[in-house]
Amino acid sequence: MNKAIYLNSRPIGKPKESDFKFVNEDKPEITNGEILLKTKFVSVDPYLRGRMSDAKSYVQPFKLNEPISSGCIAEVIESKNDSFKKGDFVSGSLDWKEYQTSKGENLLKVDENQAPLSAYLGVLGMTGLTAYFGLTDIGKPQKGETVVVSGAAGAVGSIVGQIAKILGCRVVGIAGTDEKVAMLKSKFGFDEAINYNTVKDMSKAIADACPNGVDVYFDNVGGDISDSVHVNINRLGRIIVCGAISAYNDTSAPTGPRVEHFLIRKSALMQGFIVGNYAEKFPEGMQQLSKWLKDDKLTYSETIVEGFDAIPQAFIDLFEGKNKGKMIVKI
Amino acid sequence: MNKAIYLNSRPIGKPKESDFKFVNEDKPEITNGEILLKTKFVSVDPYLRGRMSDAKSYVQPFKLNEPISSGCIAEVIESKNDSFKKGDFVSGSLDWKEYQTSKGENLLKVDENQAPLSAYLGVLGMTGLTAYFGLTDIGKPQKGETVVVSGAAGAVGSIVGQIAKILGCRVVGIAGTDEKVAMLKSKFGFDEAINYNTVKDMSKAIADACPNGVDVYFDNVGGDISDSVHVNINRLGRIIVCGAISAYNDTSAPTGPRVEHFLIRKSALMQGFIVGNYAEKFPEGMQQLSKWLKDDKLTYSETIVEGFDAIPQAFIDLFEGKNKGKMIVKI
Repeated sequence: MNKAIYLNSRPIGKPKESDFKFVNEDKPEITNGEILLKTKFVSVDPYLRGRMSDAKSYVQPFKLNEPISSGCIAEVIESKNDSFKKGDFVSGSLDWKEYQTSKGENLLKVDENQAPLSAYLGVLGMTGLTAYFGLTDIGKPQKGETVVVSGAAGAVGSIVGQIAKILGCRVVGIAGTDEKVAMLKSKFGFDEAINYNTVKDMSKAIADACPNGVDVYFDNVGGDISDSVHVNINRLGRIIVCGAISAYNDTSAPTGPRVEHFLIRKSALMQGFIVGNYAEKFPEGMQQLSKWLKDDKLTYSETIVEGFDAIPQAFIDLFEGKNKGKMIVKI
Repeated sequence: MNKAIYLNSRPIGKPKESDFKFVNEDKPEITNGEILLKTKFVSVDPYLRGRMSDAKSYVQPFKLNEPISSGCIAEVIESKNDSFKKGDFVSGSLDWKEYQTSKGENLLKVDENQAPLSAYLGVLGMTGLTAYFGLTDIGKPQKGETVVVSGAAGAVGSIVGQIAKILGCRVVGIAGTDEKVAMLKSKFGFDEAINYNTVKDMSKAIADACPNGVDVYFDNVGGDISDSVHVNINRLGRIIVCGAISAYNDTSAPTGPRVEHFLIRKSALMQGFIVGNYAEKFPEGMQQLSKWLKDDKLTYSETIVEGFDAIPQAFIDLFEGKNKGKMIVKI
């Protein structure tokens, strides 16, 4: 038997368990050139919500009644492909299945001795690369500047803040619980952190935490929280638009204050991106992140839940902020 | 006697004649190091609306019961300053007065034999430089790309479109009358132009006029018109936020669709600017614009109204779109 998770219905608003369907497939067999993979770790990420709807986007939507896929780590348990041998671990976009075959295309071998396997889904994977390229290529933070990060306790945000500290910036994080706020300061070295759920006036809280204004804003959330950062942006400020989780479950197009006025007044920049834009520079990014990790300049959080059956709920929990750092399911 | 125009009250919504006050001052006299200037041409520009309110902005607001100032061309009619002689013409930010004194700081001598004096307020002045630096430095249009310009028949827009054509782009303009639309195509060489007042579905009209999508959007207007361009932006598109005249007279902060989603989906950029950011490169810009003008690659429109008393109404008329190209008052 081989359990798989299919998209049962396109979520309306917040995803629910019934949008997913467990299916028992036959265990696949490999032919020449193929490898048989056993899934070890599954990454669940907010951007997958976009692929569950059929709106036009930068990636194809998932199809109804077909498997969902995401970043995974798998073990090669059988190989008829010269590039892989039994016992290798690989990272790549794989289906939510216990077992699957592959020709090995777009799979990257990962080394358990260099870092824990789950790190290749996080700080050394798309998460870390998203933080690294978004912050350095778009944000271009300079020593002494102030960097604000929303969704700061999340997988990307916590790495963004640490990189900004390495680069010599004052770093202020925004998160949704006192526990996360405490962790941002104690574990990740943020200079200040703000709990948006308990602060009455977010604009003022950001102004207070950023006495020299905001030079760079790494935005994972959008919505009201971002509005309150925008009003504090400095002249020539840079806003890195990485995510807008506040609205991923909205059923109508979100509206808010128009941004043109402050962009002109402050000669400021807003730029969206996806990490795939930097594919050619991934090796450079991974090398830098590995180095910082080895030098103990970078730490990371994971929320690891166990069991294949836990995947849908782990994904749903992202939108409740139940994860600290990277949310991963260990099979 | 020396007529001057003071700010009488801060406009609420659309400016009206009573927001301005005509004052008779004594004709000034110069001391050593000064020059006496007679105003010849006055530029009226949408951005002045911002300076009439006391909201925090990139320039100081005008003070109540003091003269308004803007870009002007004046003649030196008396000089006790070695750098200027009687008969020189100068360009710079001057008060709305018939006569005024100056120490010559921040004034640029302009040459009547190189171009008509009014051109130094338009194509060879801030207007042309705004078009040039916004389009080339932020928009970075590449040969064969599609450039859309809003407020295309305005002073800045008509120059933006022509520069984009010189650079080998397909250029589509948006304007508010059939007459302007015709002029964009016949006089300024736009490939297509759209009348936003008669078209039913702006998003579709832009899609039809831009079969390859929109790579660069030079935005002078903001609001609904821009929303309909945003939905047609290509991957890696660039939005130059130059102005938002649609909302300059709004009494409350304008709202609209949030932009984060399409910025991420398209890895697109929005950047605001003011021409002053490029002050160090003004000579380079003026040289390029002068060359294109002499080579007949660039043409321009002016709406010139006559008489010092006509200044307030000329300014008010900007918000009705009564100007074609640069609005100038000849004294």
